Amino acid sequence: MAKRLSIAAAGLGRMGKRHALNFLNRTPRAELVAAFSPDPEELAWAKVNLEPYGVTLYDDYQKMLEHTGLNAVVIGTATSVHAEEAIQAMRKDLHVLCEKPLSTNIDVVGAQPRGVRPRHVADRCSIQCRDVVAEARKRPHLKVMCGFSRRFDASYRDAFDKMERGLIGRPSIIRSQTCDKHDPSGFFVEYAAWSGGVFVDMSIHDIDLTLWFFGDHVMPKSVSAYGIRAVQPDLAQHNDVDNAVGIVEFWGGKIGYYFCSRMMAHGQEDTTEVIGTEGKLSINGNPQSNLVNHFHAGGITREVPHDYYGRFEMAFVRESNEFAEACLDNKPLPMKLSNAVKAVEIGAALQEALVTGRQIRFDETGRRTEGSKL
Amino acid sequence: MAKRLSIAAAGLGRMGKRHALNFLNRTPRAELVAAFSPDPEELAWAKVNLEPYGVTLYDDYQKMLEHTGLNAVVIGTATSVHAEEAIQAMRKDLHVLCEKPLSTNIDVVGAQPRGVRPRHVADRCSIQCRDVVAEARKRPHLKVMCGFSRRFDASYRDAFDKMERGLIGRPSIIRSQTCDKHDPSGFFVEYAAWSGGVFVDMSIHDIDLTLWFFGDHVMPKSVSAYGIRAVQPDLAQHNDVDNAVGIVEFWGGKIGYYFCSRMMAHGQEDTTEVIGTEGKLSINGNPQSNLVNHFHAGGITREVPHDYYGRFEMAFVRESNEFAEACLDNKPLPMKLSNAVKAVEIGAALQEALVTGRQIRFDETGRRTEGSKL
Amino acid sequence: MAKRLSIAAAGLGRMGKRHALNFLNRTPRAELVAAFSPDPEELAWAKVNLEPYGVTLYDDYQKMLEHTGLNAVVIGTATSVHAEEAIQAMRKDLHVLCEKPLSTNIDVVGAQPRGVRPRHVADRCSIQCRDVVAEARKRPHLKVMCGFSRRFDASYRDAFDKMERGLIGRPSIIRSQTCDKHDPSGFFVEYAAWSGGVFVDMSIHDIDLTLWFFGDHVMPKSVSAYGIRAVQPDLAQHNDVDNAVGIVEFWGGKIGYYFCSRMMAHGQEDTTEVIGTEGKLSINGNPQSNLVNHFHAGGITREVPHDYYGRFEMAFVRESNEFAEACLDNKPLPMKLSNAVKAVEIGAALQEALVTGRQIRFDETGRRTEGSKL
Amino acid sequence: MAKRLSIAAAGLGRMGKRHALNFLNRTPRAELVAAFSPDPEELAWAKVNLEPYGVTLYDDYQKMLEHTGLNAVVIGTATSVHAEEAIQAMRKDLHVLCEKPLSTNIDVVGAQPRGVRPRHVADRCSIQCRDVVAEARKRPHLKVMCGFSRRFDASYRDAFDKMERGLIGRPSIIRSQTCDKHDPSGFFVEYAAWSGGVFVDMSIHDIDLTLWFFGDHVMPKSVSAYGIRAVQPDLAQHNDVDNAVGIVEFWGGKIGYYFCSRMMAHGQEDTTEVIGTEGKLSINGNPQSNLVNHFHAGGITREVPHDYYGRFEMAFVRESNEFAEACLDNKPLPMKLSNAVKAVEIGAALQEALVTGRQIRFDETGRRTEGSKL
Repeated sequence: MAKRLSIAAAGLGRMGKRHALNFLNRTPRAELVAAFSPDPEELAWAKVNLEPYGVTLYDDYQKMLEHTGLNAVVIGTATSVHAEEAIQAMRKDLHVLCEKPLSTNIDVVGAQPRGVRPRHVADRCSIQCRDVVAEARKRPHLKVMCGFSRRFDASYRDAFDKMERGLIGRPSIIRSQTCDKHDPSGFFVEYAAWSGGVFVDMSIHDIDLTLWFFGDHVMPKSVSAYGIRAVQPDLAQHNDVDNAVGIVEFWGGKIGYYFCSRMMAHGQEDTTEVIGTEGKLSINGNPQSNLVNHFHAGGITREVPHDYYGRFEMAFVRESNEFAEACLDNKPLPMKLSNAVKAVEIGAALQEALVTGRQIRFDETGRRTEGSKL
Repeated sequence: MAKRLSIAAAGLGRMGKRHALNFLNRTPRAELVAAFSPDPEELAWAKVNLEPYGVTLYDDYQKMLEHTGLNAVVIGTATSVHAEEAIQAMRKDLHVLCEKPLSTNIDVVGAQPRGVRPRHVADRCSIQCRDVVAEARKRPHLKVMCGFSRRFDASYRDAFDKMERGLIGRPSIIRSQTCDKHDPSGFFVEYAAWSGGVFVDMSIHDIDLTLWFFGDHVMPKSVSAYGIRAVQPDLAQHNDVDNAVGIVEFWGGKIGYYFCSRMMAHGQEDTTEVIGTEGKLSINGNPQSNLVNHFHAGGITREVPHDYYGRFEMAFVRESNEFAEACLDNKPLPMKLSNAVKAVEIGAALQEALVTGRQIRFDETGRRTEGSKL
Repeated sequence: MAKRLSIAAAGLGRMGKRHALNFLNRTPRAELVAAFSPDPEELAWAKVNLEPYGVTLYDDYQKMLEHTGLNAVVIGTATSVHAEEAIQAMRKDLHVLCEKPLSTNIDVVGAQPRGVRPRHVADRCSIQCRDVVAEARKRPHLKVMCGFSRRFDASYRDAFDKMERGLIGRPSIIRSQTCDKHDPSGFFVEYAAWSGGVFVDMSIHDIDLTLWFFGDHVMPKSVSAYGIRAVQPDLAQHNDVDNAVGIVEFWGGKIGYYFCSRMMAHGQEDTTEVIGTEGKLSINGNPQSNLVNHFHAGGITREVPHDYYGRFEMAFVRESNEFAEACLDNKPLPMKLSNAVKAVEIGAALQEALVTGRQIRFDETGRRTEGSKL
Repeated sequence: MAKRLSIAAAGLGRMGKRHALNFLNRTPRAELVAAFSPDPEELAWAKVNLEPYGVTLYDDYQKMLEHTGLNAVVIGTATSVHAEEAIQAMRKDLHVLCEKPLSTNIDVVGAQPRGVRPRHVADRCSIQCRDVVAEARKRPHLKVMCGFSRRFDASYRDAFDKMERGLIGRPSIIRSQTCDKHDPSGFFVEYAAWSGGVFVDMSIHDIDLTLWFFGDHVMPKSVSAYGIRAVQPDLAQHNDVDNAVGIVEFWGGKIGYYFCSRMMAHGQEDTTEVIGTEGKLSINGNPQSNLVNHFHAGGITREVPHDYYGRFEMAFVRESNEFAEACLDNKPLPMKLSNAVKAVEIGAALQEALVTGRQIRFDETGRRTEGSKL
């Protein structure tokens, strides 16, 4: 029998469940052998949905790491433990696929008392992130990836290929947005306590796309951002907003500008445009759930995915498959771990600009030159 | 001052009013000098909307034809008098722009008692039509045109140019539909008494497009058609239907197939595809009133024009302008009068095939070889 | 461990390979345990792609049927043996998923000498089909399905649900097309020798959709069809065409009309419209490979899937999953086997109408009343 | 005869010609009686295209203002004389329709030596603008309008109506872009010498839309902007760019963000989104020249208008008609003159933020509080 990757799933929350099932059922070259959750409800779910298919369940992360024959871990736990769990797994010589973000500025920018200098946040965040990167550098035989699902989406892949083939000349401006369906339940307010803020939680995908399409080397020069609380005034308690717009000017004459919102009536709308000197590529300019149009007395209507999984489900499946392949065949991963850190840093700078209302500036080496003193 | 075309408008019903106003206000090289209607209400409208702008009103068609300095007439009266009025105008040496159709099989296919041979209809219709053509042939210095508005529509023009430039190879199949918004008022039932049936009234546009895109010379070989009364059962009294599908096979390996409907919930939907050996052109594949999309909790919706004028208003304006230009500068008209007759003939054959449920066949000279004996 | 369906794959040609891989890798509740092909090249492929994953290979269909513990067979061999192999499998008490069509009129309408009465074809075809149905009726505990992939497509499912919820009133007209990318290699000419003709090979999907959306009970009343050979004149040798249009009038006031083509420059374009008394549903009115648009000096361009698998890959995956589930849980299949026969019969009637140029008529019980004597 | 508005056209450059012809030919209630240009070439064009239709030509603006019976002037001369000519016309008791902008910061932000304080520019500009407003206030019986064509566009009108009807809740974010087709001739470099910069020349439309959709009363709070010279490095000599992104935060929790570009390969792309608390309206999300789609081996392509007139021609026609109507019937104009000034001020602030790389801030009364000292 061909060798398959023995993998364990850590965390069985909303996204953790999906990762577990994707590795169980939709990743032919991987075998889900173990799963961990500290949460009894999640474990009860796993008893029904994973255990009957040969998955051993754990309520202790360390014990799961010692599961016999284990090759890899997919981490879908709370963001606050991502970095630590990733490092522990690497120390057990396991490949790691970690949900984004690697780490975030949770306890500072978000929930801090006003007056605390938010600059430190980005620093703290990136210090945690950088520990993961440092650990991974020591173990170059391990595959360690922070999962940015859009990198695995067929449409983004196609757009990137077209750009690489020169179809739009030199990419110069990226417009990208991550927009969630409005959730009146108050979930997003709670979530804001530890999400790191909308730019870190949502726009990080758009920033990652920017690093992909512009190239890893691009360095931010100036950052400005503004936001409003249009439908969730309680976000004020976490210094967060429900709609935000930010611009990142990069050294070398490139610009990324981003919109994130949690207020969409219609559903998920994640759109990207890559504007080059000789053409433009748009991805998801016309959001749609499927290929159905309904013609009725009010016009012509099509539906939109309700959430990011409706839009990116197949990207997550491709992610698990490519991760398994990279581990088994020692192939390069499609993205660098250090990029994940850079994306968090830029997101945190945007969030800080948003909260302080001040522009932030960097020199060509990425060191902050201004904005920090405010 | 530059010379302008002195034109009179005959008939001030729904479409007649529009022609009058288009020549009055939107045709710089024409001057609307007179208007005729036998209907007091229409004349009352004209007193307010035409007379103050220098238009002389008539309740007698013959008298209007004698208006001093008149160069041309636009005929928008009831279909039953189109042919006669066109001939009278030509005899006064006037250019003629006549609403489609030139004539129709009104009193026969439509309202005939069952058992009457519908074949005669097409004959009678084309005899009237041909009188107009014969009269026009005698007076080659006159411009005589039956207005098929789609010939003047910017999108159809662009598609035709692209086809002519070879972008789709050899055009081989045309799919075309004329679909009206459902009108529950019963209007269409009344209208069916004299419209000539859906293929003569509606699909005639699609047939005309076929003659344009395939070329004047194409000859029908076989005709099949089927229809239903889905929402207007009373159409049965006029042997008409509210939805019909027909196919015309042409000699030389070309096919046109048509759908007409008076049942659309959403509005007007007139779509055409010209399928060639190396590509396809679609016109109005995505109907829309304007460039607005509304994103809401049910999805994304755009509206659709309510009627053919919402779709083709600017085509009618271009029609009046090109007609004026052809008359003043003795330029060729964009379509042959004989084509208008051919379109009616094919429409009448489809209508007959629909009513009888029988295929109709023609030889290469256009003579019926079968279907006539039923 | 949860029970999984042990299934064997018969035939490893283009579509057979895909079925085998889908059951191997993308059907969690099934296990591909065996595969058969009479073809050494196909077996060589299987040595690399199936055997290492525990699949036993056979060059003898009968032997494969005796594989220990086998529950089901997926048949993707040549059409000519579908019916026989399905019957053999059932006699071994195995569930059967058979590629469409169950059987076809291969040796008659296609390759027959001119003059042979094509009516017999449809008869012969349906006799073979009906043997399969008869066998299945004897073994009601077996799941026997002819795979019409569109029944498993998310967009068709959504459209069907919307129709069932009454969103378009009473469905009355279906327009549906199956259009393949032009293949200049001559493949389609060869293929026409045994495909049963374009209506049986291609439009059968559209006919099946019609039976699904209008309901199983609908009976054809009249059938007319026309075709041309625009780019593949050699199809004449098999009495087939590369573009065809057909209309099926059903008893009870419903119409289906179909276009099939093997001449598309741009790729696969399978579009369906279900037109109801109060609205319309379109499926794939805007074909697209993915969500990318390229803006360039010539305009805005999006790409189109190259073939039906590009359009329907996920439908095939869903098909294998639902088939496994139906077998394991004794759930009803989403379609009746007898429908598959009816679809072939209607397709064969359209093909005959095309070849003879004559309308075919049926009474309300489905018996031919006319067209057969020509 | 019904009274018509006697109007004169000042300036017969690209846009001036269009205004003249629109009033001559497409504005039934107006009569173009005079035209002025200082340019012999433009006058030569007018000899052929205007004079034969009864238009008196002038090479002296003052003399034209004295044309007997004149009621109004449409000003389409160089931006630098807009304000002065508008004031002169009002002093002759004439209604004024003036091309946008009323005035601009041409000789300062654009061509100034580095080091000159750009803040003054906005001041100077608005001083000129305000003279026009002051003059107009003295003569309330006159109609004085700065033409922002999008206010007359059918799609924007429809979107505004939908917003007013509450379809999207409270409008909160506006994204709007004005993107021109790339012109490699160097025209835009020359033009930048006096255009006021991209935000004043291009984004002013987007800013005007913002004032329309958010309401006249909104006051800017902070402004940030960034730009690049991707294809026209020579723009550096005028401190201008070919691509720019800016954000305007408004007091009261609203944000407008803008993209302007002169680098589009495909043509004009002016898109707007109005994002509300309960829905979104997009205008021109799918740019298109007409309703034609070309299906070819590379996919499906539609074309895009080449310039703003291709997109907004009918809006200009509606503008001239509504202006005539407002003058003749003493109806209110669809926009306030003071808004035109505010739009220029915000555009100039964005341009200054772009040039200096610094955020600009305003208090709630619109006074600058920061950014001015740099």
